[in-house]
Amino acid sequence: MGREDVKVVSFWASLFGRRVEWALKLKGIQYEYIEEDISNKSSLLLNLNPVHKKVPVLLHHQKPIIESCLILEYIDETWMHNPLLPPQPHQKALARFWSKFADETMVDAAWMAMCFSGNEKESALKVGRESMQRIEDEIRGKKFFGGDDIGYLDIALGWISYWLPVWEQVGSFQILDPLKFPAIIAWITNFLNHPVITDSLPPRNELLLYYQRIRSQLSST
Amino acid sequence: MGREDVKVVSFWASLFGRRVEWALKLKGIQYEYIEEDISNKSSLLLNLNPVHKKVPVLLHHQKPIIESCLILEYIDETWMHNPLLPPQPHQKALARFWSKFADETMVDAAWMAMCFSGNEKESALKVGRESMQRIEDEIRGKKFFGGDDIGYLDIALGWISYWLPVWEQVGSFQILDPLKFPAIIAWITNFLNHPVITDSLPPRNELLLYYQRIRSQLSST
Repeated sequence: MGREDVKVVSFWASLFGRRVEWALKLKGIQYEYIEEDISNKSSLLLNLNPVHKKVPVLLHHQKPIIESCLILEYIDETWMHNPLLPPQPHQKALARFWSKFADETMVDAAWMAMCFSGNEKESALKVGRESMQRIEDEIRGKKFFGGDDIGYLDIALGWISYWLPVWEQVGSFQILDPLKFPAIIAWITNFLNHPVITDSLPPRNELLLYYQRIRSQLSST
Repeated sequence: MGREDVKVVSFWASLFGRRVEWALKLKGIQYEYIEEDISNKSSLLLNLNPVHKKVPVLLHHQKPIIESCLILEYIDETWMHNPLLPPQPHQKALARFWSKFADETMVDAAWMAMCFSGNEKESALKVGRESMQRIEDEIRGKKFFGGDDIGYLDIALGWISYWLPVWEQVGSFQILDPLKFPAIIAWITNFLNHPVITDSLPPRNELLLYYQRIRSQLSST
């Protein structure tokens, strides 16, 4: 695809930012990547996203778009080849529903299981495992959530394949039990072996060190 | 429009359910309304929405769609006349963003301001007023959020026009200060005077009694 004025403001370890990069790469859209120091936010970020002050921001012809899943929709509507969302309204609604469900329920649960201990950790693990069962039921019998091709929901749930195992290691817990979630484990392999995904992941060791540091900072406060 | 197999499972006082009815009426889609007793949920609802067990559910040819704003998207994609979302991807992203922002921030804040007192109420009021300022900035100079015609964001924020004043009365608080939010006050008049909205609102007195009952139940626990 030709060059357009497309920029992504993100942070290397952000699972939300990575969604935007995966989507652009799947569409073959070239972009300029702008790394944000989220511990010392730039005036650029604060100007682009004054409401939430968070990455990622997609800048297209200087116009900012925020919230990773809304950016995915924008990308899909702006560059219509290699569609990310399925064409049928009902399938679209399901993809959006499970993406919203995972963002509202599972990301927080996994994060809390990593950061906390005792009852808080146990409650988070319960939510995380129950939610994962619902995702297992969705992916069973399919290569990708979108069917034969990677799509919107694969991108939205992509953190399960790479960030979650790191969080499990950092927080010494297990949600991704291979005996309970064999279909998700198979999907993880399919997802991580997709050439666009393989080539666009943060280094695992650095991710591990980053989250270990976050966890130890939380424990010492 | 012709008859299709469209059903809405909702609860008369639900601000989320009302969104679905407004959208269908704006599209001229006839539907069967099924009232749900949310204090004693039916097996129909539990089967249709096993994840959240909440209204509204849109049933189209027996297929359930859940989450009110996702239902709005489904309606807009299924019946494409009288579009609810704006045509440009960037305008679409903004409408989705403000709708998500209001659902994640303002509904809860206003609800807590109604239900609680003391510091909790004050914190909620602060969030509610700051958020309303952002919405004021969005609507200034326009008849509707969608421009000259009522659209997706008007429907998503519709609760501000009718539910919020009831909550303010029940909880003895004020977020909708006419001196601070003149553009929202003007929008409320435009919105409530739209013939589809005027004809599809729950009776104000019953709404008032319903929320007074909820508040007194919460105070007595």
